[in-house]
Amino acid sequence: MHANPTAAILIIGNEILSGRTQDVNLAWLGAELAKIGIGLREGRIVPDIAEEIIDGVNALRQRYDYVFTTGGIGPTHDDITTASIARAFGVPVIRHPDAEAMLMKHYQSVEANAARMKMADVPEGAVLVPNPVSAAPGYRIENVFVFAGVPRIMQAMFENIRHELQTGEPVLSRAVMTHLTEGTIAEGLTQIQNAAPSIDIGSYPMIKSGKLGSSLVLRGTDAALLDATLQQVKALITALGGEVIAEE
Amino acid sequence: MHANPTAAILIIGNEILSGRTQDVNLAWLGAELAKIGIGLREGRIVPDIAEEIIDGVNALRQRYDYVFTTGGIGPTHDDITTASIARAFGVPVIRHPDAEAMLMKHYQSVEANAARMKMADVPEGAVLVPNPVSAAPGYRIENVFVFAGVPRIMQAMFENIRHELQTGEPVLSRAVMTHLTEGTIAEGLTQIQNAAPSIDIGSYPMIKSGKLGSSLVLRGTDAALLDATLQQVKALITALGGEVIAEE
Repeated sequence: MHANPTAAILIIGNEILSGRTQDVNLAWLGAELAKIGIGLREGRIVPDIAEEIIDGVNALRQRYDYVFTTGGIGPTHDDITTASIARAFGVPVIRHPDAEAMLMKHYQSVEANAARMKMADVPEGAVLVPNPVSAAPGYRIENVFVFAGVPRIMQAMFENIRHELQTGEPVLSRAVMTHLTEGTIAEGLTQIQNAAPSIDIGSYPMIKSGKLGSSLVLRGTDAALLDATLQQVKALITALGGEVIAEE
Repeated sequence: MHANPTAAILIIGNEILSGRTQDVNLAWLGAELAKIGIGLREGRIVPDIAEEIIDGVNALRQRYDYVFTTGGIGPTHDDITTASIARAFGVPVIRHPDAEAMLMKHYQSVEANAARMKMADVPEGAVLVPNPVSAAPGYRIENVFVFAGVPRIMQAMFENIRHELQTGEPVLSRAVMTHLTEGTIAEGLTQIQNAAPSIDIGSYPMIKSGKLGSSLVLRGTDAALLDATLQQVKALITALGGEVIAEE
């Protein structure tokens, strides 16, 4: 059995750290990658500061099979992702002829001003990732995918490169909810976890109908073992006098 | 003028990286900290793996004035935050007598089983942060605040330590939206930014009523300069034939 490929996301943008914009790209990407057996193992959120972007991308691209960055590839002064990625890879920024052609066509030449044409600039060696929403492309350089921050555009870019990724065994997920609190089930749950180390059992407090309870999430690549383990968790809940109030 | 204090958040949990749970703690904390003049400068999301938590907290606590961690302080097998934080600081885990008393009272002794009492364990030297929602406390060790992951509990814990933080100049925020796209305003915006370097001007593409446009966000500590800069941005939009379609 090969271990599944790994990935990380580098979220670039002051607007995320200031709390003004709620990031939703990490959760979307984590779920999509799990479906194709790639584990999202780390996320970092950094401000629009070149050194932070460079350090972040260099740390992550050496540790994980794939890195996805989001944000900072537009035409304005605060869009410094491309210049920073180029510095991280030690290559110059070049104007990509295909990107230039795409933008000239999209903006019908007359609106293709200097700021917009900046979106045709990529680190040397980058391969374009088409953007079906607003023309300005993302790109791939080695194992790093540089995407837009707008979720709709980021998702469209991901769809355009999904086939390039080396996939693993899909990670399946099952969950049960109960009004038993974590402290009640902890001991039995530990025993179940120890007996099935390849299943990742997560336990999370939840508040439902104003009442505390627990959400128990089982993840793994072996469907039969996942189901058997789920049955054990349900039996534990019943044995402790609880009820399964929801199941996924 | 002193620089504002800085902070980072370390989000601990497989459920965030798998996409199952949408983190909302980073955005909430970023906004709250900005109000009291503390800059949230970095976020990291790590899985429930001790080495990742240790490396994360050690990297962040040396770089920033404050570090907030969320998640992994419950009673179940996957709650490994406290053991990891203790290792990061090179101190043993001890049972805190006050936490023990709180939990014994909350669970009325009979339900105070071994798993629940694990929530009274803290790294040696930690100072408790009361949890008004479900009794199990968070804690502070040096410049690191260890909080629960459930937003309601995390927020209550933050309110309990807010007065302990060294504050800075509140960061004020103003925003205007227009259907002009970023490429149209980029050049003028760069000039405004260059003339007011202490104001952080962010430009973000947005899609409103199915139409692309831009959201321009100005942040800074000088209210008068912020307002003057906002007026310049509005004048730029008008000069370019656009309209301010919303303002905050």
